[in-house]
Amino acid sequence: MKERAAVWFEGLRDRLCVAFEAIEAEAGSSARFERKTWKRPADDGGEAGGGVIGVMRGKVFEKVGVNVSTVYGRFAPEFAKSIPGAGDDPAFWAGGISVVAHMANPHVPAAHMNTRHIVTTKSWFGGGADLTPMLAPVPEDTADFHAALKAACDRFDAAYYPRFKQWCDEYFFLPHRGEARGAGGIFFDGLDSGDKERDFAFTQAVGMAFLDIYPQIIRRRMAMAFTEADRLMQLERRGRYVEFNLLYDRGTQFGLKTGGNAEAILMSLPPLARWG
Amino acid sequence: MKERAAVWFEGLRDRLCVAFEAIEAEAGSSARFERKTWKRPADDGGEAGGGVIGVMRGKVFEKVGVNVSTVYGRFAPEFAKSIPGAGDDPAFWAGGISVVAHMANPHVPAAHMNTRHIVTTKSWFGGGADLTPMLAPVPEDTADFHAALKAACDRFDAAYYPRFKQWCDEYFFLPHRGEARGAGGIFFDGLDSGDKERDFAFTQAVGMAFLDIYPQIIRRRMAMAFTEADRLMQLERRGRYVEFNLLYDRGTQFGLKTGGNAEAILMSLPPLARWG
Repeated sequence: MKERAAVWFEGLRDRLCVAFEAIEAEAGSSARFERKTWKRPADDGGEAGGGVIGVMRGKVFEKVGVNVSTVYGRFAPEFAKSIPGAGDDPAFWAGGISVVAHMANPHVPAAHMNTRHIVTTKSWFGGGADLTPMLAPVPEDTADFHAALKAACDRFDAAYYPRFKQWCDEYFFLPHRGEARGAGGIFFDGLDSGDKERDFAFTQAVGMAFLDIYPQIIRRRMAMAFTEADRLMQLERRGRYVEFNLLYDRGTQFGLKTGGNAEAILMSLPPLARWG
Repeated sequence: MKERAAVWFEGLRDRLCVAFEAIEAEAGSSARFERKTWKRPADDGGEAGGGVIGVMRGKVFEKVGVNVSTVYGRFAPEFAKSIPGAGDDPAFWAGGISVVAHMANPHVPAAHMNTRHIVTTKSWFGGGADLTPMLAPVPEDTADFHAALKAACDRFDAAYYPRFKQWCDEYFFLPHRGEARGAGGIFFDGLDSGDKERDFAFTQAVGMAFLDIYPQIIRRRMAMAFTEADRLMQLERRGRYVEFNLLYDRGTQFGLKTGGNAEAILMSLPPLARWG
């Protein structure tokens, strides 16, 4: 399952890159993803995995990062206690894909998608996708994004969408601003239904739903005219995105504070942000 | 002492604003500080203090915040345990001034200064000042900034400067980048020498040293020609500043997570920042 999950994440990465590069081509740009491989240093000098950072700076995508990683080893004793199934045996394996797109046109919402598979003495899947409008949210975009994720959820369990939507709303919230990060989506973690094939299939469905719907939303909005005020609002909203990721995002905080690859982790930060 | 400290912080705020506005005037700008008063909500509906946010967006100062605050009340029980002298009695009073300057010209370093007085069943002073070059640090600027702070320290205790300089280097460090935030300065906390008048006088001296030296450094560099590459480097360095403040700064983390005034706390963030 670990090998199959890793291969799936890489394949989804390839499909997303192709889809995003096709949008650039439609806009008359020849922008392409640049890839950079990194190795995770092992304490004992052995193998500990690594990943590939993919980044494209284009005409439609001001900056989009599509990262995959496969890391393994042993958690630090103190940290292991907080991870399901790692209390007695700190050995772990973790693979995943993470996408964050910051768009040039303020009418196009930013988006985030991440899916992962973690293995200790237990194993589970996690992930989600959420949309962050830069201007007043367009009901059609929000509705279609949620509908795509709901359809993926409903094929597996009618309880998934309402539960994972609420989880997303709770997770992507900035308490110090009293505001949501964006228009929501779904968020799930620790998914272990007892049927691993089914959980893996659901995780794949989330990735495919994102691959299907986000390019549609981009194409609707990418050529719309915008004002300097729209651009300033976009940069201000991106400031909030930075605040969320650095103050609250568990993956970011954990990764940076435990010696993760800073460039890969911070690929989520926008190319330009403003605090007015 | 509380009243005198609060009055001092406000007076220093006024002097800094006058000094910074004079620099704008020299550059042919009529930029002035705008002030905004905020009240801290009290749990019981009573008085809990508040502060004044001062911000100027000018030609030389792209954005500079000079905030004063005087807050009081009772710490939450769990938090009180971590504060000296608040374990048995959670009543507190805290007053301070905080300055962060993000400059238009990349040749002018950004700077930060903060001094504060905290009273529980104990009482102490804290603060510091540090310089953050946006391009390659200019040895003259770094040397003069440190010399001004050292002179202030040495009038009180020859051990202060080496100790507070090291504290600053350790505090303003980004472990995930393996780099210092800037060219350092001094940082001190929990200062209670047994002679409160002397500690207050030292705290004042730190503020006066900053008021003296930072405008000198600004005037040296504010009219220098710079390139688009310099500007991009400046925006990139500001991204690191954001990373430090949101990931590691104890005051920011504590303030935001305990219902502090978000606008005042985040006044330290730059007007524009870039992640390349």
